[in-house]
Amino acid sequence: MATDIYTRELRQPIDVAEYLFRRLKEVGVRSVHGVPGDYNLAALDYLSKCGLHWIGNCNELNAGYAADGYARVKGIAALVTTFGVGELSAINAIAGAYSEYVPIVHIVGQPHTRSQKDGMLLHHTLGNGDYNAFTRMNAELSCSVARLEDTHEVATLIDNAIRECWVRSRPVYITLPVDLIVKKIEGERLKTPIDLSLPKNDPEKEDYVVDVVLKYLHAAKKPVILVDACAIRHRVLEEVHDLVKASGLPTFVAPMGKGAVSETHPNYGGVYAGNGSNQGVKEQVESSDLVLSIGAIKSDFNTAGFTYRIGQLNTIDFHSTYVRVRYSEYPETNMKGVLRKVVERMGAVNTAPVQPITNALPESEKGSKQQLITHSYLWPTVGQWLKENDIVITETGTANFGIWETRFPPGVTAISQVLWGSIGYSVGACQGAAAAAKEQNNRRTILFVGDGSIQLTLQEVSTMIRNKLNPIIFVICNEGYTIERYIHGWEQSYNDIQEWDFVNLPPAFGAKDKYKGYRVKTRDELNKLFADQEFASCPYLQLVEVHMPREDAPAPLKLTAEAAAARNK
Amino acid sequence: MATDIYTRELRQPIDVAEYLFRRLKEVGVRSVHGVPGDYNLAALDYLSKCGLHWIGNCNELNAGYAADGYARVKGIAALVTTFGVGELSAINAIAGAYSEYVPIVHIVGQPHTRSQKDGMLLHHTLGNGDYNAFTRMNAELSCSVARLEDTHEVATLIDNAIRECWVRSRPVYITLPVDLIVKKIEGERLKTPIDLSLPKNDPEKEDYVVDVVLKYLHAAKKPVILVDACAIRHRVLEEVHDLVKASGLPTFVAPMGKGAVSETHPNYGGVYAGNGSNQGVKEQVESSDLVLSIGAIKSDFNTAGFTYRIGQLNTIDFHSTYVRVRYSEYPETNMKGVLRKVVERMGAVNTAPVQPITNALPESEKGSKQQLITHSYLWPTVGQWLKENDIVITETGTANFGIWETRFPPGVTAISQVLWGSIGYSVGACQGAAAAAKEQNNRRTILFVGDGSIQLTLQEVSTMIRNKLNPIIFVICNEGYTIERYIHGWEQSYNDIQEWDFVNLPPAFGAKDKYKGYRVKTRDELNKLFADQEFASCPYLQLVEVHMPREDAPAPLKLTAEAAAARNK
Repeated sequence: MATDIYTRELRQPIDVAEYLFRRLKEVGVRSVHGVPGDYNLAALDYLSKCGLHWIGNCNELNAGYAADGYARVKGIAALVTTFGVGELSAINAIAGAYSEYVPIVHIVGQPHTRSQKDGMLLHHTLGNGDYNAFTRMNAELSCSVARLEDTHEVATLIDNAIRECWVRSRPVYITLPVDLIVKKIEGERLKTPIDLSLPKNDPEKEDYVVDVVLKYLHAAKKPVILVDACAIRHRVLEEVHDLVKASGLPTFVAPMGKGAVSETHPNYGGVYAGNGSNQGVKEQVESSDLVLSIGAIKSDFNTAGFTYRIGQLNTIDFHSTYVRVRYSEYPETNMKGVLRKVVERMGAVNTAPVQPITNALPESEKGSKQQLITHSYLWPTVGQWLKENDIVITETGTANFGIWETRFPPGVTAISQVLWGSIGYSVGACQGAAAAAKEQNNRRTILFVGDGSIQLTLQEVSTMIRNKLNPIIFVICNEGYTIERYIHGWEQSYNDIQEWDFVNLPPAFGAKDKYKGYRVKTRDELNKLFADQEFASCPYLQLVEVHMPREDAPAPLKLTAEAAAARNK
Repeated sequence: MATDIYTRELRQPIDVAEYLFRRLKEVGVRSVHGVPGDYNLAALDYLSKCGLHWIGNCNELNAGYAADGYARVKGIAALVTTFGVGELSAINAIAGAYSEYVPIVHIVGQPHTRSQKDGMLLHHTLGNGDYNAFTRMNAELSCSVARLEDTHEVATLIDNAIRECWVRSRPVYITLPVDLIVKKIEGERLKTPIDLSLPKNDPEKEDYVVDVVLKYLHAAKKPVILVDACAIRHRVLEEVHDLVKASGLPTFVAPMGKGAVSETHPNYGGVYAGNGSNQGVKEQVESSDLVLSIGAIKSDFNTAGFTYRIGQLNTIDFHSTYVRVRYSEYPETNMKGVLRKVVERMGAVNTAPVQPITNALPESEKGSKQQLITHSYLWPTVGQWLKENDIVITETGTANFGIWETRFPPGVTAISQVLWGSIGYSVGACQGAAAAAKEQNNRRTILFVGDGSIQLTLQEVSTMIRNKLNPIIFVICNEGYTIERYIHGWEQSYNDIQEWDFVNLPPAFGAKDKYKGYRVKTRDELNKLFADQEFASCPYLQLVEVHMPREDAPAPLKLTAEAAAARNK
């Protein structure tokens, strides 16, 4: 390489793979997820010298889920797969990240550019010489595609892809042919960090929008704030926090916005999800004459089956690409700048107290002699046990709905996949989140997953063990796909599953003495476990089977499933 | 439904789902693979009344692999997934089936057509109202796409899709929106079976091609037959068998053609794969002046790194869509008709004896006191133990190359994925093959998989247990991705894996007493196991850890890996 004419002109020659990985380190990546494959092996050689840790997942779908979980904690993630087989195995995870605005830099090791041009009949190809099919498929699910081919363009393509990934908060797809890995490019460029700042709104337009927002806000008698997923994904939590604090307005979150605001804040009122909300929340939100809706994703599962009752005339929508006041749209306006100015210029607004949210058991459960662990008992009890800065991951199914009832301590990160809803996601996401948690002063990582869902992706428990990650995994054992039973096929065997001995799986994955498993079948056993300080300190990986009745489900799940069933008719 | 105007005109109204499943039964499907999801649940209700068994896989990728394995035994398979999350999880398996010509009818449960038209923000969508993205992606990997929407077209679309799947031997993609499941269509049509016959060649053209083939065949002094994957996939094994028998020509198979011809036939000479062949085979094939090459896929891993030494002037290529004699191409000519006439009109040809292939140990191993189980010891020993009609599945890696050295008894079906080469494939394929084997008078199903590859897909062992399938699973324990070490990163930790306690996994999956596990570390232990009649009778699922040296690999793997490494430079 050193004798290449182009190379001689480089001031600080650096290999393409090193450049790429140094950029990833720069934007906050420390652990890289993926599976080795012959078209990416040589690239992996560069990881450790760039200060990056290779996780080495069991399969690519799980690696993709893990990258998603990691990105939700760290802000961005990297995934390395191999051509064809690897990237396609991961593609459902990429679709989920695209759907839910999670930034993953997906790097795909490809055959030599010469082999591609010659259309060689290589392994991992469709056998028809078409080397672009997988790129076309990934382009459906990526906000940017960077094909690394020409060394003169490589650095620009990499920088742009990472910037797009960050700013648009969605997956990008980078192809890295084996011959490019070791090609030299200009390293001096690394001295200038990638510009990750949002494009600024037009100041005059921004001021105009802020004035309109303030006009309606000041006129409103009962304004409330409703925070949803895109407030998290598009990084306006600081603005939201300041808005909540400065305004003193009653503040609610949609299910996908859980964790976006501090739930111990005095004006936090709980989860709003239409008919899935508790009565006080529903009344306060739906009787409001102005809902400041920040980052909403009004999907079926996020609204308990489209049961929002908020008129557009009473709504201001804040989004990453537009703001909408009643029916007036302001495109190309990022909410971030608008929210900041609203906070600064707001002054006094009409506020009202909220009904405080607690983790007290519902009246029906208090003093009950019942020993069965029901959802109405579990989720407040979990809330009492959680700690500041925990990371809580819930699987699509009963857990995703149950967690609505849990009031978080400050600083909790909630991870779930309510819109895309791919079952099995949470186990991979837990691995990624736990890796991120380790990088963030060993935050606790806690997973709630059903006995059906964990079967899709269980091998990532092995990856947790291999990487010495210490999450607590609660497996809700309720004999199969309960959420599906509520939609269709209550007694049908296709909603049953093979019964597993979950606590003995980690030892089979080589957990040895750095592991503890528990089987919890009664409320007393659950409470005893939650009182155990050793358990709570997460000294190693722990798995808890929580046995619950087959037919039991959180109330909002029942509502949502009924709505889904009706829509399917 | 009964009051629908259209329905009143139907002579034998039948629900769409029932029609579809009855057609699948008609073409030979008995077990249906897949994972339940809310958009397909109502369809699954129809399976049992149509005489179909629901397998219920742990995840969709594995279900896809299983469908692939099932199709390779039964001729065709069906896979049911759900919109978005399910179909994308399976897509790597579909790509493999497309690449390797395996017919899978992939049925995707979709949201209500009205929800799709309204672009509703439902779970399992990208959140952008685009309901066609996944169909576009699948269209890259399917030989036919059938979107079921209009009841007037449904039956035709289904019949055409199944026909295309069969005739072109590749996956087809059928969308089944929830509202279509119960729509009525004309059932009388079912009285006429789908026409699965190949389009006939133009008789004049076919005769012309046959004459040309015979001219060269009669002129040849040392003709040989070389059979490859597409002979199996495009269903010309009967013609091949008759050709081999009638001609008496020396006959060889490519690695992907293993199992295509009876290996106990006196003119069977073994595996030809360029430099990966044994010396006698290599000489006989490469010195031939006419190779009748039937269904070749000359991919890197099928040719030991493109080391074929057969000139095109000495070749006649028989394919499903064309025949090529030296450089003369005859498009739109299916080999089936041509081969049949060649057999009928051939008469005498110049033939020669072949060196008989046996399962004798190589000289170096005979009488050795060595107890380590090496590849050169394992594969002939396996050959001695195999029985007539076994199904043998080998994973990409050492097993796929090792099996070249094994001479099969008659009737053995070999399953591997040499071109697509997605690791983990074999475990899913084993589940599907075992289900097919159960339908074929309980043939034995035997899997050889590496300790790295099984980690991708191990949960399908649970599906085997759940469905009471009794394969024998040999796990080659050699501490990681040996094939990748040979390509790049001999000592790199990314080629290591977490060490699992494989024999204790099936019990954790609920195997209970209907299971036996073995750990084999010496040749004596292996021989003892192979002498065990109870073991050989496959009374229940059995898993055998075969511990082998980390650095050992079959010779052709080393060659192929070296070639791949060189091409990556």
